[in-house]
Amino acid sequence: MKINENFLQLKENYLFIDIAKKVNAFIKANPDAKLIRMGIGDVTLPIAPAAVEAMKKAADEMGVKETFRGYEDSGAGYDFLREAVSAYYRKLGADVSAHEIRINDGAKSDCGNITDIFSSDNTVLVTDPVYPVYVDSNIMSGRKIICADSDESNGFAAMPDKSIHADIIYLCSPNNPTGSAYTKAQLEEWVSYAIENNAVIIYDSAYEAFISDPEIPRSIYCVDGAKKCAIEMCSLSKTAGFTGMRCGYTVVPDELVMTASDGSEVSISKLWNRRQGSKFNGVSYPVQRAAEAVFTDEGQRQIQESISYYKENAKLIAETLERCNVPFTGGKNSPYIWFKCPGGMGSWEFFDKLLNEAAVVGTPGAGFGKNGEGWFRLTAFNDRENTIEAMKRLEKVIK
Amino acid sequence: MKINENFLQLKENYLFIDIAKKVNAFIKANPDAKLIRMGIGDVTLPIAPAAVEAMKKAADEMGVKETFRGYEDSGAGYDFLREAVSAYYRKLGADVSAHEIRINDGAKSDCGNITDIFSSDNTVLVTDPVYPVYVDSNIMSGRKIICADSDESNGFAAMPDKSIHADIIYLCSPNNPTGSAYTKAQLEEWVSYAIENNAVIIYDSAYEAFISDPEIPRSIYCVDGAKKCAIEMCSLSKTAGFTGMRCGYTVVPDELVMTASDGSEVSISKLWNRRQGSKFNGVSYPVQRAAEAVFTDEGQRQIQESISYYKENAKLIAETLERCNVPFTGGKNSPYIWFKCPGGMGSWEFFDKLLNEAAVVGTPGAGFGKNGEGWFRLTAFNDRENTIEAMKRLEKVIK
Repeated sequence: MKINENFLQLKENYLFIDIAKKVNAFIKANPDAKLIRMGIGDVTLPIAPAAVEAMKKAADEMGVKETFRGYEDSGAGYDFLREAVSAYYRKLGADVSAHEIRINDGAKSDCGNITDIFSSDNTVLVTDPVYPVYVDSNIMSGRKIICADSDESNGFAAMPDKSIHADIIYLCSPNNPTGSAYTKAQLEEWVSYAIENNAVIIYDSAYEAFISDPEIPRSIYCVDGAKKCAIEMCSLSKTAGFTGMRCGYTVVPDELVMTASDGSEVSISKLWNRRQGSKFNGVSYPVQRAAEAVFTDEGQRQIQESISYYKENAKLIAETLERCNVPFTGGKNSPYIWFKCPGGMGSWEFFDKLLNEAAVVGTPGAGFGKNGEGWFRLTAFNDRENTIEAMKRLEKVIK
Repeated sequence: MKINENFLQLKENYLFIDIAKKVNAFIKANPDAKLIRMGIGDVTLPIAPAAVEAMKKAADEMGVKETFRGYEDSGAGYDFLREAVSAYYRKLGADVSAHEIRINDGAKSDCGNITDIFSSDNTVLVTDPVYPVYVDSNIMSGRKIICADSDESNGFAAMPDKSIHADIIYLCSPNNPTGSAYTKAQLEEWVSYAIENNAVIIYDSAYEAFISDPEIPRSIYCVDGAKKCAIEMCSLSKTAGFTGMRCGYTVVPDELVMTASDGSEVSISKLWNRRQGSKFNGVSYPVQRAAEAVFTDEGQRQIQESISYYKENAKLIAETLERCNVPFTGGKNSPYIWFKCPGGMGSWEFFDKLLNEAAVVGTPGAGFGKNGEGWFRLTAFNDRENTIEAMKRLEKVIK
């Protein structure tokens, strides 16, 4: 049996494993240090009471013959949830029908699996710094990957270069790791670039709930023409604390059609449904009920409390950096704050310094690509108390 | 953007969609008929009370900051569940370590996704009749597929042909759709064939809990040498009614190693973990707690009640066919009964007859491959009452 040798092109260690090793060594050497973790993008607040109750009710239903549910017919999600997501999109100003939405177990799975329906012979464009999953899942299938530079000159929000062709474009806005968020005008430019290149945009909107600025779209479908070229992936992980519950959704619009080599028109949603029909069996019913509860008025009120809490943390981090005259992006429409390492330090150098001198863990920008070197990511997902304490320590390290 | 044109080689309609169309037309024409569905392999009994309680407890934990769980570190499953599965394997007579087990959202996902780590340039061997997912997921990646014939002459349990080479072998025992189950001696033959061919066996043991005969292994790892060549996939769907809960597990043994083209030894579990690390984020925590409860003594007692209930249904179906002198396989160590259509009828011809004359829905064998023509599948997953009634009607149709 021959293995898929593209896997041998992947780096052995994942960024967060390298970080974990350094952190573990630090803890061993400093057992009494009060470590504050502001690195990995996991949430810390519990899920909404409405979601807990909905899950318990659904669990009870599963234990009674009359209300038990087995396989979900389509595996694309129950209508009750797809319709709730569709209604949510309407509130964001985007017109997405329930049948264009597939419920999944989180954005990461679909983000990796969607590449199955594309030929290996496509050029993939990512913005650098980049969430590693976009790159790794395309290395695995042997695709050519090119980068658009996000850097200080463009506020870490790369724009398309019309002289370069791409077939598949990954955009993440608000961005992980840089916290930058595309304006409507910027997204219009990407959509028009995609249409000109007959390309598909994979749009990761996992952090849309953190957008406050009304000028910044919370869905790519707020932009005209996007339904002709974009697949949007979103998740309840960061909006409703579902990192351990596992539920998200992918939108493949009806209008997204590509031409096969024999000249026939191929519906991308049809391909995707066929892929999922053979390789996926739907999301746990009680999880779908919990997700449905998130989209009720009560659920939305409850999750807004958590989002506001994290946003306040982000603001505290941003204010600290402003006070220290450190350049940064994010922190406003995003739970991520991306800042320049002080004194021209390298990312890993500053990581070590912050860990050893302040017992604060962040993420070195270099782990996200070449343009990340010299930059650093903090997240707003910690406690208020820890965030305040970490900012005091950070300020001391910087000064 | 170029699509993956292998998808255009797939048949547009899935077997069960064709069946649904015929059934819907029948219902429309016969609104008063009392239809009995014995086609699709979904369970009907609720999940075990222990699983319901465990899920509710976990849902409560997710709603409290101190016990909330976010991302699972590895995404491979919590230790509590991996260890419970490992202990379960010991009871089946197989030595599988917790770290060799990955928890998933059901066998179908892994069964499709595992092909990512294999080169497209491999020959895939399936036994025919076959569960369509094995074939379709390999058509999607453009692999050459060959068949080993399961037919009346070998009790619908195909054995390897040493003159033919294969790289990836799909075995399902107890078999879907034929209900046949491999003896230890037969599995030994497959294992030795795989080792000689440097091949990997993908062993689907989803129906292992229905095995009564002590001569029939409930895991391929009951066979010496299997850990060198086999990946086993199992699920709680059929054993614990988890079709709507979504939880299963895949075993990739440490000993499973392949040689890359540069001569280096590659651990298959390392490749698989790398794949899942980028494209999967773990199973919902409350679902994993529910699954853990299934493996407790109380849980095992509770699920045994359901399994015995289904087995009794299978026995009723088998007895009916025996009375009618109809040749069949399965029904003993399997929830599936696979029988020869009476009077030399074709599969779809008999499907129409059974639907129109008895209002009973089964699955035409032709839908599972060329050797299925002239055969028919019934499942034991219905009510006792419905099964008894369906057998009365079947007997009338046959006579």
